[in-house]
Amino acid sequence: MAEKKVFRIAVIGAGRIGKVHAMNIHQHPETVVHYVVDPFAEEAANSLADRVGAQVVEPERVFADESIDAVVICSATPTHSDLIEKSLLAGKAVFCEKPIDLSIERVNAVLEKTRNCTAPFLLGFNRRFDPAAAEMQARVRAGDIGDVELVTVISKDPEAPPIEYVRESGGLFRDMTIHDFDMARFLLGEEPDSVVATAAALTSEGIAAEKDIDTACVTLQCPSGRMAVITNSRRASFGYDQRIEVHGSLGSLRTENVPTSTLVLERAEGVRRETPMHFFIERYRDAYRLEWEHFVDVLNGKAEPCATGIDGQRALLIANAAYRSLETGKRELI
Amino acid sequence: MAEKKVFRIAVIGAGRIGKVHAMNIHQHPETVVHYVVDPFAEEAANSLADRVGAQVVEPERVFADESIDAVVICSATPTHSDLIEKSLLAGKAVFCEKPIDLSIERVNAVLEKTRNCTAPFLLGFNRRFDPAAAEMQARVRAGDIGDVELVTVISKDPEAPPIEYVRESGGLFRDMTIHDFDMARFLLGEEPDSVVATAAALTSEGIAAEKDIDTACVTLQCPSGRMAVITNSRRASFGYDQRIEVHGSLGSLRTENVPTSTLVLERAEGVRRETPMHFFIERYRDAYRLEWEHFVDVLNGKAEPCATGIDGQRALLIANAAYRSLETGKRELI
Amino acid sequence: MAEKKVFRIAVIGAGRIGKVHAMNIHQHPETVVHYVVDPFAEEAANSLADRVGAQVVEPERVFADESIDAVVICSATPTHSDLIEKSLLAGKAVFCEKPIDLSIERVNAVLEKTRNCTAPFLLGFNRRFDPAAAEMQARVRAGDIGDVELVTVISKDPEAPPIEYVRESGGLFRDMTIHDFDMARFLLGEEPDSVVATAAALTSEGIAAEKDIDTACVTLQCPSGRMAVITNSRRASFGYDQRIEVHGSLGSLRTENVPTSTLVLERAEGVRRETPMHFFIERYRDAYRLEWEHFVDVLNGKAEPCATGIDGQRALLIANAAYRSLETGKRELI
Amino acid sequence: MAEKKVFRIAVIGAGRIGKVHAMNIHQHPETVVHYVVDPFAEEAANSLADRVGAQVVEPERVFADESIDAVVICSATPTHSDLIEKSLLAGKAVFCEKPIDLSIERVNAVLEKTRNCTAPFLLGFNRRFDPAAAEMQARVRAGDIGDVELVTVISKDPEAPPIEYVRESGGLFRDMTIHDFDMARFLLGEEPDSVVATAAALTSEGIAAEKDIDTACVTLQCPSGRMAVITNSRRASFGYDQRIEVHGSLGSLRTENVPTSTLVLERAEGVRRETPMHFFIERYRDAYRLEWEHFVDVLNGKAEPCATGIDGQRALLIANAAYRSLETGKRELI
Repeated sequence: MAEKKVFRIAVIGAGRIGKVHAMNIHQHPETVVHYVVDPFAEEAANSLADRVGAQVVEPERVFADESIDAVVICSATPTHSDLIEKSLLAGKAVFCEKPIDLSIERVNAVLEKTRNCTAPFLLGFNRRFDPAAAEMQARVRAGDIGDVELVTVISKDPEAPPIEYVRESGGLFRDMTIHDFDMARFLLGEEPDSVVATAAALTSEGIAAEKDIDTACVTLQCPSGRMAVITNSRRASFGYDQRIEVHGSLGSLRTENVPTSTLVLERAEGVRRETPMHFFIERYRDAYRLEWEHFVDVLNGKAEPCATGIDGQRALLIANAAYRSLETGKRELI
Repeated sequence: MAEKKVFRIAVIGAGRIGKVHAMNIHQHPETVVHYVVDPFAEEAANSLADRVGAQVVEPERVFADESIDAVVICSATPTHSDLIEKSLLAGKAVFCEKPIDLSIERVNAVLEKTRNCTAPFLLGFNRRFDPAAAEMQARVRAGDIGDVELVTVISKDPEAPPIEYVRESGGLFRDMTIHDFDMARFLLGEEPDSVVATAAALTSEGIAAEKDIDTACVTLQCPSGRMAVITNSRRASFGYDQRIEVHGSLGSLRTENVPTSTLVLERAEGVRRETPMHFFIERYRDAYRLEWEHFVDVLNGKAEPCATGIDGQRALLIANAAYRSLETGKRELI
Repeated sequence: MAEKKVFRIAVIGAGRIGKVHAMNIHQHPETVVHYVVDPFAEEAANSLADRVGAQVVEPERVFADESIDAVVICSATPTHSDLIEKSLLAGKAVFCEKPIDLSIERVNAVLEKTRNCTAPFLLGFNRRFDPAAAEMQARVRAGDIGDVELVTVISKDPEAPPIEYVRESGGLFRDMTIHDFDMARFLLGEEPDSVVATAAALTSEGIAAEKDIDTACVTLQCPSGRMAVITNSRRASFGYDQRIEVHGSLGSLRTENVPTSTLVLERAEGVRRETPMHFFIERYRDAYRLEWEHFVDVLNGKAEPCATGIDGQRALLIANAAYRSLETGKRELI
Repeated sequence: MAEKKVFRIAVIGAGRIGKVHAMNIHQHPETVVHYVVDPFAEEAANSLADRVGAQVVEPERVFADESIDAVVICSATPTHSDLIEKSLLAGKAVFCEKPIDLSIERVNAVLEKTRNCTAPFLLGFNRRFDPAAAEMQARVRAGDIGDVELVTVISKDPEAPPIEYVRESGGLFRDMTIHDFDMARFLLGEEPDSVVATAAALTSEGIAAEKDIDTACVTLQCPSGRMAVITNSRRASFGYDQRIEVHGSLGSLRTENVPTSTLVLERAEGVRRETPMHFFIERYRDAYRLEWEHFVDVLNGKAEPCATGIDGQRALLIANAAYRSLETGKRELI
């Protein structure tokens, strides 16, 4: 009886998102978590390794072990770029949470240094794998709404992160809007070349004190004239507000928020429905699972990575241009 | 037995929208259409007068007849400013379809000339009277969503008007977005002082040939930092797309499109619902009726006009600044 | 220049529903209210006649006046059968509010006596003209959902009528469910031949004291086996609950309630939408208007009456069988 | 460092639903699958055991092993009653898929025989754990809609099972409606004491040939007069149609179907949404997980089993009475 091929995976980072990926890897019939790495959270690493039958090791062990097929990078942002380089240069496939780095120079250097690596690299723009977004993009490409004219991304977090996080985040555009820049590119089907941004700090004094912003409206435009508009807030008190819309010559595609359940209460004072799912890990649970299935397809040579280093680079270039626009009050080239 | 006071109204303009107002006047228990005026459409004027038991007369007769309480102006745009002036100076209350004029100089002149008139003037920003929009604004004012942070207006026509109309329209921002500028002001609760616009002609070659635009994204900002974003298209092939949204510190208010009916067809290939109402007169039928009820309240001294000449002037100033922004690629002061 | 033919209508009954029909008649370009009749409400008759430019007369004048094309009967139920007979025998077309009579013997007598009358008779089952219901029935007939298997009618009033009304109403099945029996027949496309009913008086002690019921579930079955199920309550505290559903071999059609507006309020404690329209005249405003347009088509010989005396007779037979079922606890033949 | 208590579970039956429960057990931090039992599907048992790190054993080993805390019974229906008895008499907690047995005599015997067992018994009425249904029931109990008057359960499968399955199923009422009888009891808050049923075989000739039914409408009534109505079909071509509704004196609670995603496509010919989830394991994925969490609470002594043998017995008594009603055409006592 033949053995089924199973890919051995090393997971670096045993925090919240590392656990999500580790469980998906563990549950997928073609992948196992072989190593868990987290020098900064020993207990979490042990507990996670225990759960999935893996071994806790030092990072260097991962790159040296020829039996490891792929590395999943879920550690802190400043460690991403080194780990990507080491993994790819060691011939491992890489699945890395966004971003590659907050500095465009460092991102460029990573892309340059790994240019000749043949192992695949998937950057974790998880929202591309949300079933509604993926189906939307497929329908746009299939021509269901004709020519794309205007993409709208509404993206609001349920509450602002701790101010310590904000301080290290790279700012709203590089930390949060970056997902929306990627979604706009995913749906536009054409590279935007200019951006204009309007923003303010309205939700908390702490954010204003950090000279960061929490509420924004950013408009991208492509050479053909088609546009994308993104609205953001760090705080939608009713839940995680994630809606996208593509207007085309033959119609429109849009997604609605996902409520925690479909329960409806009707009383004389109004009809009550449940609020949108609050937490991103719950809201994008299916997306994370499908993202992993995609990566297994990549490992099997059945698919090209849906989002790569170039996508990370482009999104960061837009974020940087958006910041310039805030300063100059002008439309800026990306 | 006491007589009930009935206001005598003169309707100028017997076209599509003139008929809507005339029928609402006729059905209201406190108002009658006394005169119909339309020198350019004799047959339509006769037919309409017949329907509501009115008399067809020349314009001058309206201003000279002391028994006329109010004038409803539904004629072509270039005639508005003169008719407003004459009516107000004759002491008649005025209800005029938007705009006062396409030229800000002419609008300023009208406001200057009628400054001392005591008769009330209601400008027909009909969408303020849509039950959903009116209730939204009331709830915003009541604090239901806390502090207003971001207003979103999605406003798309089902199809572009004839190119002859486009040519005389003043352009997208002065003809169509003007309603959205007013809605943004209605909901923001603070006067916006800057605007930045992105636009293109994507739906038809005719519009591009006229150097007009048909697809746009305009962002307004107020001194406090709060924002409004408007997206427009001249052509939403699925119907009249009219949605508004206000995001605040305690929650959000939004309206959805109104389908032609609530019928749902569920089959294996998908769940089908009806498209949004296609025609503005059908979509805003209730708004026009409630607008008239408001004007009767104004005539009875029970309410101040909800939208005045100042509102028309402000919306036009925003439109003009938006055009400047398109040219300069910069945020422009309003 | 040719004159347009205008039908002269006599409206009998100047109450709530009489006013609705009179205004629709008045606004229709091919009909005028010529007479208003209401010996029991002189003031209401005068006021209504005034509004539509009609004359108040005694009933006999209507039947004697050869210029009258049609009679609209909106008076109290016990007067319906006589007025129908007199009008049809006088050669007038008749549009009568349901029911013909609460007694099946009297209904049979009316049908017998007017059997040879050639003037058309439309019975006012207004819900057939609701745009969603009419479109649903058209799609069922067009085969959009294949063979009909199960019809569901949910029909709940916002609040019970005064007990004096209940006492004269003929009981829930003859007064309220009668509309649902008609809707079930309209959608089934096959005559039901048996019925079984379950019911109780749950909403008010007054109704129980009158030995009437206010909450019911009635199941009809056709010879082919297909079914319809109706659920009723005299009191849906959140509004007028009117939903219908047809399940077929290829899919399903259903209608949802119509909210007073599409406004949505999203806050941390829940998402609030507006309640369904509360009042039947508001909810079925379009249906009444379309019903009148249909009757004008009938007058013009362009359509056969959508609902006739036979439909009134069949619905009453079902109601009577449903009452027998309540007594016997058995499925009863209709 | 203290050890965390982990319950050892034996799973009997390695089929579709056995796998669902085994994965939930495996993922729960307080439970492990220790044994997998399936004498009739060796390969499936091995594969499942492999996945969760368990051992494949004979049934008798389960009852003899004192370290086993609980038995999860997912084998074929005819084996349930024996396995329940053996497990409970061996002092194991039991979680058994419905039904206990298709024969009421056998069910009574199981309850009698295990009357003195102290280990808890949870019967798998999984829909009680659907988040929307659970929240609905909690709100009903909390009085959010006042007194319950009418419960409506719409329950339609996407397609009929193979005719071999139908033959062994016990018939529609004992196989499929049994879930709805349980849901009605869960929501009514009062034991129904009579039932009347209407049914037919409309979807397939095979079902008619087996003298079974596939389309039904069943009404239950309680001593207080309150009612529940259930409508069923073996085939809803658009997906798994699962909706419940409770009408009360102060309002109504209802659930809507769960679409595969919230994507909306708007085109001139209609607005398209996704169909409801098709497969029960996907639709009730969360319910199965929450059901297991509840069972762990039971094992920890923190909760009483939400559904017990008595609930299975009551639902079967209703099913039997419904069959009698079909034969007699009468309301039957339960």
